[in-house]
Amino acid sequence: MKVFITGGGGFLGYRLARRLLERGMLAGPDGKPTAISEIKLFDAAFAPGADPRLRCIKGDIAELDVVEVALDRDTASVFHLAAVVSAHAEAEFDTGYRVNLDGTRNLLEACRDLDSPPRFVFASSLAVFGGKLPPVIDDTITPTPQTSYGTQKVIGEYLVSDYSRKGMIDGRSLRLPTIVVRPGKPNLASTSFASGMFREPLNGVVCEVPVENSIEMWILSPDKVIDAFVHAHDLPASAWGTNRAVTLPGIKFSVKEGVEALRRIAGEEVAKRVVFKPVERINNMVKTFPAEFRADRGAAMGFKADAGIESIIRDYIAAEGIRL
Amino acid sequence: MKVFITGGGGFLGYRLARRLLERGMLAGPDGKPTAISEIKLFDAAFAPGADPRLRCIKGDIAELDVVEVALDRDTASVFHLAAVVSAHAEAEFDTGYRVNLDGTRNLLEACRDLDSPPRFVFASSLAVFGGKLPPVIDDTITPTPQTSYGTQKVIGEYLVSDYSRKGMIDGRSLRLPTIVVRPGKPNLASTSFASGMFREPLNGVVCEVPVENSIEMWILSPDKVIDAFVHAHDLPASAWGTNRAVTLPGIKFSVKEGVEALRRIAGEEVAKRVVFKPVERINNMVKTFPAEFRADRGAAMGFKADAGIESIIRDYIAAEGIRL
Repeated sequence: MKVFITGGGGFLGYRLARRLLERGMLAGPDGKPTAISEIKLFDAAFAPGADPRLRCIKGDIAELDVVEVALDRDTASVFHLAAVVSAHAEAEFDTGYRVNLDGTRNLLEACRDLDSPPRFVFASSLAVFGGKLPPVIDDTITPTPQTSYGTQKVIGEYLVSDYSRKGMIDGRSLRLPTIVVRPGKPNLASTSFASGMFREPLNGVVCEVPVENSIEMWILSPDKVIDAFVHAHDLPASAWGTNRAVTLPGIKFSVKEGVEALRRIAGEEVAKRVVFKPVERINNMVKTFPAEFRADRGAAMGFKADAGIESIIRDYIAAEGIRL
Repeated sequence: MKVFITGGGGFLGYRLARRLLERGMLAGPDGKPTAISEIKLFDAAFAPGADPRLRCIKGDIAELDVVEVALDRDTASVFHLAAVVSAHAEAEFDTGYRVNLDGTRNLLEACRDLDSPPRFVFASSLAVFGGKLPPVIDDTITPTPQTSYGTQKVIGEYLVSDYSRKGMIDGRSLRLPTIVVRPGKPNLASTSFASGMFREPLNGVVCEVPVENSIEMWILSPDKVIDAFVHAHDLPASAWGTNRAVTLPGIKFSVKEGVEALRRIAGEEVAKRVVFKPVERINNMVKTFPAEFRADRGAAMGFKADAGIESIIRDYIAAEGIRL
């Protein structure tokens, strides 16, 4: 069976692809474990040196014909991760709608031409929540995004639900916590600092954190979110019913606690490299993202969170082979 | 000040235009009562004989350039009522998305070119609710539409909120109950029968009702919904805050009770012209529309419902000059 991953040139998309290469299997259209015959990655750009077992297609998701050509008719599984990130979508309104809304719709439309309706996993975000919210967000709270990114994500969820209801896809939307620790370079996400504040100091570099240290966030590690993509895909449609979106379990973390954990693990010298320089635009945006959830439905469906911020930092250090 | 009404060739849009002609005023950009200098109606088609004081522009809302040309730059107020109705959007998936989603986005985009951000009143629908719901829907319940129409309407609400947050419009979305009694001919809405079951028998014609008589609905009269459009427009932005969508107060009504009220008012001869012939496709769709709300926020904002089904029928008889 063929797998198609948008945003496959990005950190999470590429990591998902490598996981699928390792696994070699996914639930097939009949629900039974089925061998993956090909993994195709679609993105606007790719870093050089991709695994030769992966097919990398460069293209613009906002161009319907490009997406239609890229998506083979016998594709069984689609993972839709391509997106313009939060601060970028807020700064460039048109770019955000073009990629995050038009792009999602193009991909859904292209899925209608497939031999049979694919399983379709959509990376949504807890940024669908914002504004005046209770301190703990449970599964009954209505999304009221206060960013264009969050708006585009909640619209994507509704499209995934409607196309699923119509039998055009078998869709599953995951509201991702902020992913920490991302390796590599900072990106334009307003929450990029939440990875940088660990990654840069551990690499001997100072990290300027653009928010106050009282900011709290709901986070998940890269490994656990890849687990979640695979699990969301392999669950039977009956586990989703008519509600095709779920908030993923995660852990609450304050920036201040993060620095303390880093100090305990890597020492004062490293922790000192975290410098707070709040930027109003970023601080105000991140403040609207809720920091604590009761993700009961996600937990009941078998999605799992990390043990805590310390284990996330230690896992990152081990995975990157960092010597303290 | 100039006013622009999409769906202005339709029953509600045209009725709104006539009300605005009578009133002659709306809240201006500064909130003060301001004289209306021109009312422009935009629609795919118009009945002949429109009031000569109205400018009627025929065009396709799904064509961005057509909308941009039609919308004068000095427009101060936009009422967006144009839509493909529920059963039509369910039967023709592409038409529904083209008019209800692309059309709404085109209009919002065209508003960005105006001299200043217009007040923008969007006709949403209680069809945003569906599926597994509590018996009474209050303002905390999350929309989970089970129709493409409802999906397109909730997406429209999110767009109106985001464009408002960005200061591109000053938007207000109203979730309309089913409007009863509509004069004229049946339309493709799955709820068209709820008007036909009064209108046709009062005109001496048999009405076949395509749902079971146990079906309950949340309804509002044409007069009250026009009141709501004007009130929504004239409320200050501060009355809306960051939550730009509201469910309108209405009354609960069962089809069975409607027939009984018709019998009391117009007699057995008339009531006998209501014939139940359930059509599974329609019955199943209407069943997913919730029938009872606690529209506290709408009531607190000053929106008003009718007194009951009897007063709605009597008002219709009086307005149409029907002799019993």
